[in-house]
Amino acid sequence: MTKTDVLVLGGLSGITAGISCRRHYPDKKVTLIRKEGTVLVPCGIPYIYGTVGSPANNVVPDGLLEKNDIDLVKGEAVDVDRERKVVTLADGQTFQYDKLVFATGSMPLVPPIPGVDKQNVFPVKKEFDYLGCVLDGMAAVKDLVIIGGGFIGVEFADECRKGRDINVTVIEALPHCLQMAMDDEYCAEAEAKLTEAGVTVRTNAKVEAIIGETAVRAVRLAGGEEIKADMVILGIGAVPNTVLAEKAGLELGFRKTIKVDRYMRTYTDPDVFACGDCAEKHSFFTGRPVGVMLASIATAEARIAGSNLFSPVHQNCGAVSVFSTMINGRAFGVAGLTERMARQAGMKIVVTTAEAPDTHPGGMPDSCLTRVKLIFAKDTGTLLGGAASGGRSIGEMVNVMSACIMHGMTADAITQFQMGTHPALTSSPIGYPIVNAACKAVLPLRD
Amino acid sequence: MTKTDVLVLGGLSGITAGISCRRHYPDKKVTLIRKEGTVLVPCGIPYIYGTVGSPANNVVPDGLLEKNDIDLVKGEAVDVDRERKVVTLADGQTFQYDKLVFATGSMPLVPPIPGVDKQNVFPVKKEFDYLGCVLDGMAAVKDLVIIGGGFIGVEFADECRKGRDINVTVIEALPHCLQMAMDDEYCAEAEAKLTEAGVTVRTNAKVEAIIGETAVRAVRLAGGEEIKADMVILGIGAVPNTVLAEKAGLELGFRKTIKVDRYMRTYTDPDVFACGDCAEKHSFFTGRPVGVMLASIATAEARIAGSNLFSPVHQNCGAVSVFSTMINGRAFGVAGLTERMARQAGMKIVVTTAEAPDTHPGGMPDSCLTRVKLIFAKDTGTLLGGAASGGRSIGEMVNVMSACIMHGMTADAITQFQMGTHPALTSSPIGYPIVNAACKAVLPLRD
Repeated sequence: MTKTDVLVLGGLSGITAGISCRRHYPDKKVTLIRKEGTVLVPCGIPYIYGTVGSPANNVVPDGLLEKNDIDLVKGEAVDVDRERKVVTLADGQTFQYDKLVFATGSMPLVPPIPGVDKQNVFPVKKEFDYLGCVLDGMAAVKDLVIIGGGFIGVEFADECRKGRDINVTVIEALPHCLQMAMDDEYCAEAEAKLTEAGVTVRTNAKVEAIIGETAVRAVRLAGGEEIKADMVILGIGAVPNTVLAEKAGLELGFRKTIKVDRYMRTYTDPDVFACGDCAEKHSFFTGRPVGVMLASIATAEARIAGSNLFSPVHQNCGAVSVFSTMINGRAFGVAGLTERMARQAGMKIVVTTAEAPDTHPGGMPDSCLTRVKLIFAKDTGTLLGGAASGGRSIGEMVNVMSACIMHGMTADAITQFQMGTHPALTSSPIGYPIVNAACKAVLPLRD
Repeated sequence: MTKTDVLVLGGLSGITAGISCRRHYPDKKVTLIRKEGTVLVPCGIPYIYGTVGSPANNVVPDGLLEKNDIDLVKGEAVDVDRERKVVTLADGQTFQYDKLVFATGSMPLVPPIPGVDKQNVFPVKKEFDYLGCVLDGMAAVKDLVIIGGGFIGVEFADECRKGRDINVTVIEALPHCLQMAMDDEYCAEAEAKLTEAGVTVRTNAKVEAIIGETAVRAVRLAGGEEIKADMVILGIGAVPNTVLAEKAGLELGFRKTIKVDRYMRTYTDPDVFACGDCAEKHSFFTGRPVGVMLASIATAEARIAGSNLFSPVHQNCGAVSVFSTMINGRAFGVAGLTERMARQAGMKIVVTTAEAPDTHPGGMPDSCLTRVKLIFAKDTGTLLGGAASGGRSIGEMVNVMSACIMHGMTADAITQFQMGTHPALTSSPIGYPIVNAACKAVLPLRD
């Protein structure tokens, strides 16, 4: 039996929770148990198939663990005895803990489509060797169909066209790709970029069956149309990996995630914490459970969990949900609520837009038009959400928006925001679109 | 006599004040008077000499005025009769106002160096034709000396080497270039990038005289060394343009700027406002007067002034001072206090650093190492300042820092910051350096 103060089960958010624990409690012994030989950068997975070229180039280095004095044990935890505070691995090793952290993540959702188990149909598992096999298999592919037009689906589509003259079709059941995350006008812009990259985008299209003998031959849509396919990627979403948690008697909540309080402690056991995709999330806005799974939320939660292990004082304010992506050279980002979400929630809102080149003067080389949209609460003037498309600076611009949302900034406060500007790096001080969109909200908010 | 509700005197911040007034008071008649035929993007001026290629490519378009229904009058205001509320132009035109805004900006500081009036010695005036002449003159230059290693000096140096095989020397009296804005390690990094671009950097060097017959021939340093020069650019700083304000009887304050309250109203006259380089600035931190002049502060002040004209309710929280620049392909940025400033002010601080590639995995193309430094107040944990160097995303990263500073975020709050991350756009969620630097501050802050 190995004794440890803190036992962490899991991958990316497990590493982050371990590091956070180390920073807050330098004297504690921290042990991380995980099944995977290597941990992949989850958001980097689509890029294995294009830009970065292999799973080996998309790994979270274990050096982080060593550097933070965290013991790594590779193995599969199969039993948790919460009374004795003992975790047992498949190989029989046992670990006694004081505090236990579930960071067991998620697994790809495999939809109940007839034929989904045929050869060459791949859910996006976060497994090194598996993803390598998919990459090898892609060399012989002529017709790739991606089911699901969310972030992972469109990123796969864009990447798989890079350096491969193959037919790539994205099939999305909703009216737009990315519709769960972005408003229509940004979705349309993203779809146009995909089309420009040679991807066929089929929206409002429902997959009825995956057909073929042993291997996939085509994907049949409702209505009967068949789309030729010698490989199918399933980018439908993910489900929390909470089998062991359930077995350990931890209360599960929304969509079978582990129920946690604001300190990331499980509802069931004050010595057991959970974070990341396996833990229940609540909206920053409503406090209600939400199904979002994002590496950035997972790591934020892991930092909170790690900091609370021996003194629970850091509250999780809930998921703001900040996304960004790059499609065929154009970046898209969202922070907080979209206009659609806010309207669906019955909120009275004021929506404004602004655009400006991301350099100034506009004649600077590599200048790219930034489009920004902000959503304010009519009654309080508070920023509820923002969206942007443009060049690479969008990645950090949505983080500016996130900081404004998390701190309840009003349109009025944002009009006074002191941003730095520089010809090669940002929009002009007179045209900075986050501030200008806020300026445009002032009168409508007052009416 | 022309009657107008609002009369604005000036350039860039004048345009912004006018637009802000239009947004807050849609029914008011707004008139802008300025001397210049065209308004240049002030921060774009060094780029005229390299990347953008001409003054014509560096202009703030007057279309902004038309779009916002602001009347433009080109002319020089020479008299303000505050009792009658009448402004008179050099050509005799008169304007009666209800509210008057001084946005008269600044002029380059010409240091009292012997020989500073010789031919081919150029202060950086914000004048279209003048800057065009300097550009034309540069075609024949072999040895360019830039006096002053602040932002404008180093940007000129970097740009003037682009496409020109000329000797460029920057002379800075302090131990480092950019030392007024950045800490030593960032200054050293910037100097190395300048050197790499073929610029000769002379620090701790004091100019004693500019020598030559009618035209400059060399610059003589204290100690006697002469540096060959057939053109000299003076990048020493700027002084507020407040001659007319003083003549109008407005009280002047720190370094002859116009004294204004938090609503940007002049101390002297509640119907006269001032903003931008001509207006007194106070530190966000100490509330004391500060000499910083930045286009981003000027436009923020202009938005506040415009919004307060007929109902002064929007308070200026003071200058945070957010800078960014790009030197030979590497970006540098600062928000708030530097470590040096904080120590000089006697603050007990905790300083942390973190670095990470600005994409993830690090193997993504065009990946660039981001270095971040954060300065926290020891007693409160509040973020006082941040600095960063890296790729183009630095421009918006310092704006994330600015949002955190302006809202009094503590290290603890920043550890929970929910940033969006994406392989092509940001550091990884586990390595995001602003959050990681905050995490590293947790224990030292607690001690």
